[in-house]
Amino acid sequence: MTEAQLTALATRALLGLGIAPADAADVARILVMGDLFGHHTHGVLRLETYGERIDNGAIRVGAPIAIEPVAPAVARVDGGSGLGPLVGMRALRAAMERAREFGLGMALVRNGNHFGAIAPYCWLAAQEGFASIIGSNASTTIAPSGGREERLGNNPLGIGVPRPGGDPVILDMAMSVVARGKIRAALKRGESIPGTWATDREGRPTTDPQAALEGFLQPMGGYKGYGLALMVDLFAGLLSGGAFLTHVNSWADQPEAPGNLGHFFILVDTKSLGSPEWLAARMEDFAGIVHGTPAADPASPVRLPGEIEAANLARHRRDGLRIEDSLVAKLEAYAARAARA
Amino acid sequence: MTEAQLTALATRALLGLGIAPADAADVARILVMGDLFGHHTHGVLRLETYGERIDNGAIRVGAPIAIEPVAPAVARVDGGSGLGPLVGMRALRAAMERAREFGLGMALVRNGNHFGAIAPYCWLAAQEGFASIIGSNASTTIAPSGGREERLGNNPLGIGVPRPGGDPVILDMAMSVVARGKIRAALKRGESIPGTWATDREGRPTTDPQAALEGFLQPMGGYKGYGLALMVDLFAGLLSGGAFLTHVNSWADQPEAPGNLGHFFILVDTKSLGSPEWLAARMEDFAGIVHGTPAADPASPVRLPGEIEAANLARHRRDGLRIEDSLVAKLEAYAARAARA
Repeated sequence: MTEAQLTALATRALLGLGIAPADAADVARILVMGDLFGHHTHGVLRLETYGERIDNGAIRVGAPIAIEPVAPAVARVDGGSGLGPLVGMRALRAAMERAREFGLGMALVRNGNHFGAIAPYCWLAAQEGFASIIGSNASTTIAPSGGREERLGNNPLGIGVPRPGGDPVILDMAMSVVARGKIRAALKRGESIPGTWATDREGRPTTDPQAALEGFLQPMGGYKGYGLALMVDLFAGLLSGGAFLTHVNSWADQPEAPGNLGHFFILVDTKSLGSPEWLAARMEDFAGIVHGTPAADPASPVRLPGEIEAANLARHRRDGLRIEDSLVAKLEAYAARAARA
Repeated sequence: MTEAQLTALATRALLGLGIAPADAADVARILVMGDLFGHHTHGVLRLETYGERIDNGAIRVGAPIAIEPVAPAVARVDGGSGLGPLVGMRALRAAMERAREFGLGMALVRNGNHFGAIAPYCWLAAQEGFASIIGSNASTTIAPSGGREERLGNNPLGIGVPRPGGDPVILDMAMSVVARGKIRAALKRGESIPGTWATDREGRPTTDPQAALEGFLQPMGGYKGYGLALMVDLFAGLLSGGAFLTHVNSWADQPEAPGNLGHFFILVDTKSLGSPEWLAARMEDFAGIVHGTPAADPASPVRLPGEIEAANLARHRRDGLRIEDSLVAKLEAYAARAARA
């Protein structure tokens, strides 16, 4: 399937779910970019869950998204429990507008929902010349360091810097050693997991994926990862005026409750710092130094953050993507609602 | 020694080194706060090295610090190879001014030097109601993931959020599993180190502290820590117009060259988001949820980032600090220069 075909299918599915045309295009863009980057868990696959949550009322279609200017360079956004990537795109644009005017802009979002991967937002920002720091909280899966109860989300953080004429450098990371999906995959294959990935319910390290899924994820880097996850929540949840820590709802536990997620978008207009040529030359120098590092394994050269994703994107744009038939059928079923309506 | 006595001694030493009175007070404040937090490696001890670098010309006393407004909310600061914490304080104030006016403000610094610990800047910002994201690059000690040559600094990142009426929550972390100081301490004690801390010159994990000091530090969390260190350098070194990666000088290798460090300061005025009472109530709720986490070891309750440092500060303010006689003598010797001059 080509990018255009996948985008058209996702857009039709969203229209079938009652999303307005311009908004459907925004949401499709974020999710299709997830697939193009190779992160299919954050791609159009998410429309399955989004559709279920629209049907049960956890995601509110047509809810107003309120953008409140609290200071010249800062907007506070109330997502109204709308569709996550739609709220995310509105907030990204609000931050862009401010950064364009003041050199620096921020949007703080409350009452959001799962908004896809962060890398697509960093990518879109970079395409318009903005460096970005973007974060979100999430339902609790991590225990604070020294604790034995999850009270903190696996809060993702994305940081991006544009590279005019080339691919931006983008780090998009969650705070656990690995994502829950990797543990689920090990369980599916009947394999054990490294003891550093997660603990069981009692806070004891475990190699049993089932016990790990019932327990909680370990933050990467110990207390440093715990600290980062917590600071992301302070910006995304607490400063935004939204829910934080255990106040964030879990769709797994309460499928009919709004997620109440919080996000933050901080953008820097690199054009205020220098010309695109200035930035391109510096990024070229930077990339050259990193790529020139002698590799521990000559078959695996040193890479910049986001380089694998950018290569996936180029390959998928050239060769198309493989989307599972069952997912296509599900999306077609959503799309058919519009035809029937 | 009381905080006031240590501050007076540090200030006199700085005056002896030729620093102007108001600037000496700024620098003393940052370094004494390092000691109060319990981070003596980033306290007044640094004045020894700073003095040597002033004497050999690597740090330029009286160099103009140029603050260039590049956009309404963004200042670019040229530190002129001046004393690190002095340049840092000027940049912090430039960011504060802008954040006060626009809700959000940034200072990007080039031609800086070692500026002390980051936590004191986050603390000072928090006292005036600013949340902060502050980072610096550093001379190269880390190999990019998959590489076997250090091309990246152990770039520290600090994030702080004020808590009106209480201690701010502050994360101040470098990107390696441990600081080089811990490896030096192990060498001094004749102990081996865990194999996860560092590699030797060939990129092989080592438990020998000597080989580790000749090799390079491992980033925490593997490629995530590598990615974070790299993104900090992109903001602190590349966007600031300063030196980055291997362009940053090492005082160990080139004691007479300016450090050419870059920093960034991003501040958010929390007063634009709500009243101090609003913020205090939310921080109280947040802290209560974290502190209420059942502890794996009941003797070690779960703590917020910066809580140990805040407790150290309170204890040191109450009981005073112990400063080694040899350091006091060194500082008195610097101070005596002014009397002689």
